[in-house]
Amino acid sequence: MTNIIMNGCNGRMGRMITDIANKDTDVQIVAGIDAYDKVANDYPVFTNIFDCNVDADVIIDFSTASAIDDLLKYAVEKKIPVVLCTTGLTSEQLDNVQKASEKVAILKSANMSLGINTLMKILKVATEVLANRGYDIEIVEKHHNQKLDAPSGTALALADCINQVLNNEYDYTYDRSSRREKRPEKEIGISAVRGGTIVGEHEVIYAGIDEVIEIKHTAYSRAVFAKGAVDAAKYLASKETGMYNMADVLN
Amino acid sequence: MTNIIMNGCNGRMGRMITDIANKDTDVQIVAGIDAYDKVANDYPVFTNIFDCNVDADVIIDFSTASAIDDLLKYAVEKKIPVVLCTTGLTSEQLDNVQKASEKVAILKSANMSLGINTLMKILKVATEVLANRGYDIEIVEKHHNQKLDAPSGTALALADCINQVLNNEYDYTYDRSSRREKRPEKEIGISAVRGGTIVGEHEVIYAGIDEVIEIKHTAYSRAVFAKGAVDAAKYLASKETGMYNMADVLN
Amino acid sequence: MTNIIMNGCNGRMGRMITDIANKDTDVQIVAGIDAYDKVANDYPVFTNIFDCNVDADVIIDFSTASAIDDLLKYAVEKKIPVVLCTTGLTSEQLDNVQKASEKVAILKSANMSLGINTLMKILKVATEVLANRGYDIEIVEKHHNQKLDAPSGTALALADCINQVLNNEYDYTYDRSSRREKRPEKEIGISAVRGGTIVGEHEVIYAGIDEVIEIKHTAYSRAVFAKGAVDAAKYLASKETGMYNMADVLN
Amino acid sequence: MTNIIMNGCNGRMGRMITDIANKDTDVQIVAGIDAYDKVANDYPVFTNIFDCNVDADVIIDFSTASAIDDLLKYAVEKKIPVVLCTTGLTSEQLDNVQKASEKVAILKSANMSLGINTLMKILKVATEVLANRGYDIEIVEKHHNQKLDAPSGTALALADCINQVLNNEYDYTYDRSSRREKRPEKEIGISAVRGGTIVGEHEVIYAGIDEVIEIKHTAYSRAVFAKGAVDAAKYLASKETGMYNMADVLN
Repeated sequence: MTNIIMNGCNGRMGRMITDIANKDTDVQIVAGIDAYDKVANDYPVFTNIFDCNVDADVIIDFSTASAIDDLLKYAVEKKIPVVLCTTGLTSEQLDNVQKASEKVAILKSANMSLGINTLMKILKVATEVLANRGYDIEIVEKHHNQKLDAPSGTALALADCINQVLNNEYDYTYDRSSRREKRPEKEIGISAVRGGTIVGEHEVIYAGIDEVIEIKHTAYSRAVFAKGAVDAAKYLASKETGMYNMADVLN
Repeated sequence: MTNIIMNGCNGRMGRMITDIANKDTDVQIVAGIDAYDKVANDYPVFTNIFDCNVDADVIIDFSTASAIDDLLKYAVEKKIPVVLCTTGLTSEQLDNVQKASEKVAILKSANMSLGINTLMKILKVATEVLANRGYDIEIVEKHHNQKLDAPSGTALALADCINQVLNNEYDYTYDRSSRREKRPEKEIGISAVRGGTIVGEHEVIYAGIDEVIEIKHTAYSRAVFAKGAVDAAKYLASKETGMYNMADVLN
Repeated sequence: MTNIIMNGCNGRMGRMITDIANKDTDVQIVAGIDAYDKVANDYPVFTNIFDCNVDADVIIDFSTASAIDDLLKYAVEKKIPVVLCTTGLTSEQLDNVQKASEKVAILKSANMSLGINTLMKILKVATEVLANRGYDIEIVEKHHNQKLDAPSGTALALADCINQVLNNEYDYTYDRSSRREKRPEKEIGISAVRGGTIVGEHEVIYAGIDEVIEIKHTAYSRAVFAKGAVDAAKYLASKETGMYNMADVLN
Repeated sequence: MTNIIMNGCNGRMGRMITDIANKDTDVQIVAGIDAYDKVANDYPVFTNIFDCNVDADVIIDFSTASAIDDLLKYAVEKKIPVVLCTTGLTSEQLDNVQKASEKVAILKSANMSLGINTLMKILKVATEVLANRGYDIEIVEKHHNQKLDAPSGTALALADCINQVLNNEYDYTYDRSSRREKRPEKEIGISAVRGGTIVGEHEVIYAGIDEVIEIKHTAYSRAVFAKGAVDAAKYLASKETGMYNMADVLN
């Protein structure tokens, strides 16, 4: 049984993880941290993380960037590994994450779903075979109309994953309307479609001479990110120090 | 039997139209015009259009913008309708096309395939029903890596066709990477994917609350444009004056 | 304000409709009927429909085939229109629905989502233009791995909608592995993909010479059916007698 | 420079390979074999393979099953490797191919395109990761309306490639309309869409809980098979004995 502290337990993702943990007999949430504590939780909830004196094997964090400094301090002090899902950290915070990982295990990924992380594994194989043979590589991602950033962090992570195989020699382009020229070879075009409530689609296109290979991931609900976080927590619970990511959970 | 003069007969599209005309017992090419006349054609070829003294019912033009002035003069003089497929005309030339159409029938379309023109018909119906119900509209087009312009003229024509139903109140956007905001309602995002030898794909996405309708056209070869031009020629042969487009051929 | 009686209020769809009605200021659920009444509802719940003495403008039914006989009797007696979403009725029951509709308004559709019903409208236009021009028509549907029937009722309804335009001259085929022959012209192939938790995808393919048009609907959650049922209820509340379907709600 | 004998040189694929070889400075066709020799070829054509006395490094075969017995005899006798692209061989012929490969190198693949063979490589990776995690696997293929067999040999080869990773424990199903049950876990559904002139599309769907990965190959022209055959010929020219396939060419 893996005992979890849920940082950000009353946010949308925190509640979803609570639901998933309730149905999973291998894990339980033993405490929550949230600035908002006016709902009935099945576990004790602390507004200040330092007040939390409950023993746990791992912390799952889906909070906000401003809560991360305290979280890292607490995790190092208590020696509890952290599945860190909050995005938008400053570069200083990213440095602190790195430093903290020397003292406690931390897992951080651009996207928590196992599907996207499987996609990355597949993209490495595909890129190795196809880029040498003159295939052009493009990414199209689709998300809901409330999303602020474009392209998505996941699309950029996919591009980086591909570019790593290509010695990081490829540039990314987000707009071709302002130029008038043939497609440069060493380019990855990234297009961002926005509309409705689309949870998240990422498609990578390898276009060659008279043939095309398309590799696409569709998320139908945010539960896939919650489920990935719980899987990551099980994996990380026994680790002592170091930086991990979802690829480690897959293998 | 429809007798055709092929303007630009030795270019890629001119040769394709010749092939299609050869297999179609309802039409025949009776003469060609081309600056390059060093190939064996089954019909007489003139390097100067004004030397062409062959009777015909219609001219199909797939030449270059610089050849259009002479073409219009010739067509008006000889009273022969023109299926005008050359793109990239200057606004002055477009005015001349308009004026010429008062004396001879001219058909001009952003895209010569019957499929794309059927798509436009479908999009009008879809937009009428869905835009009112809060669906967001996006376009993704894919073309080969040698194409200079992005988005394609056809993608813009599809957007215009949709926007007409929406009282032209929608803006087009080609790049979301430089802003950080929720999608505006009255916007059509147009993304251009480039790679390999893709002939032409256009997809229109209507994204609503928890449901999405996608309407997509794929051209597998340029023959669809050649075939559309021949269909247009048959249609236009009997017309006297006026501007026509492929929607007229469909109906 | 439209007052609704929810028949089958504690089933999955009944609860979803309750959620949607709660957020919609134009409707309210004033009573529920369900054999199972051990949950806390915000409205009175009756295990026997004939005990329900609450005034209402319309009934939404998402129950089971065995509950339909009583439902129809009650609706006719009380003169309350019915949005009938339960499927799998016997032909005798379908006759009874027809008879009941002479005394009270009844709305019944193969699929309650507005998107699918918009699709049908689009398919009629597409089929009229394309079938005459030699395009072959195929349907591919995808659903979750717990679905018992294949193809889906919705796929069959789409095929019927297309076939109506074609004077019902087309046959449906579900399996080509057992024959070895060229595709007959007057055929609609219907393929059923099953896997994971896919809520529902329906794609209609029009394949011509070197060009293909695809028209696809994706449902991301069952909420689209609940939302369609509520829209239908608003529409039907003021109707006196007759059979209606979702196409009426669209127009 | 690789010298090629083209068996079936005046068939559709033979002519296409001739075109591609003409543009490739690393290969040349030095002789052709074809029952039909009434066309002008740039190389000598023999109606009887045993009359062909031209030296060559490799034979490409795109002929008919009935021509294979003579081909194998000739290849073994002359010690010339064979890229064997003809399909529909009897099991006796397949045995003979095997025996011949002990004396001369033979390359045989269900599909000659590099894209499809890359797909197979990708599918192995995807299946290893996803099948264990409860993803269901389905295949949808699309081909033109003249194709006699369904599903395509390539779709079956993809299924076999996937099943090999799964210890061949999965059954294939081509029709779900005649049963009424939940999808069995150890099943691969294979759907065949037929229409228009579609050259060949193969899509493999991995459907999990709230997420789906789709991996799709589209061929836009038969040139991809011709190109693959020429690549295979270059690879095989230096090999002495043994059975090879396109996966060997990829690596």
